[in-house]
Amino acid sequence: MAPQPVIRSRQTEKTINGIPTQVVCTEFSNYIFIVLTQYGKIGTLVSITPDTRSGEISLPLFTTRVLLGKDEPLTHVYAKNVAMFVSQESGNRPVLLGLSLKDNSAETMKNVKDMIKACQVW
Amino acid sequence: MAPQPVIRSRQTEKTINGIPTQVVCTEFSNYIFIVLTQYGKIGTLVSITPDTRSGEISLPLFTTRVLLGKDEPLTHVYAKNVAMFVSQESGNRPVLLGLSLKDNSAETMKNVKDMIKACQVW
Repeated sequence: MAPQPVIRSRQTEKTINGIPTQVVCTEFSNYIFIVLTQYGKIGTLVSITPDTRSGEISLPLFTTRVLLGKDEPLTHVYAKNVAMFVSQESGNRPVLLGLSLKDNSAETMKNVKDMIKACQVW
Repeated sequence: MAPQPVIRSRQTEKTINGIPTQVVCTEFSNYIFIVLTQYGKIGTLVSITPDTRSGEISLPLFTTRVLLGKDEPLTHVYAKNVAMFVSQESGNRPVLLGLSLKDNSAETMKNVKDMIKACQVW
């Protein structure tokens, strides 16, 4: 067997509503890096950071910030939608997300979340 | 043979001056994404973008911008030093660079550039 690479990265491809869609997930100690793309681009780069507030057991809070690309309100919604569970499952690590989708329908979002699960590196 | 993944990514590891060093290079259509790490972290995230000015045949110009992490003058110097040749070799694509080095000596910089060359994805 080849030696396991130190930095774990997995990718998958699936056609969703006729559009080839790629997901790449890479694990770093301080970030999970995920790219969701239907253009082959990194796209809009968003950081999703869990807020650390003690004593709260209500809904988890996340701060989203667009680092590269257009800063549109819906981008923050999509980013939280697809990345919150990754942060929660990876010990509250922040997520760095590249988002480059032609189709942002609920069905596509559900599909890309399943693709992220299939590329679990955390 | 397994099908070639759509998004090309390569990584390598080498011990430089006693420090395990990882390099990961991933090709997107609009960016080359490179992480240089001696901490397993993404580290400081810097974009290196070639300036498009016509009629100039002097030294190439690049704009560096820190997207995540401490914005220190030397970070821009290191980022240009290791990423300019990648941009030039990849058809003037911008580079997104994660920089997380314990040792920023000239020798280490030379070594990581050789590691990037060994992970050529463009």
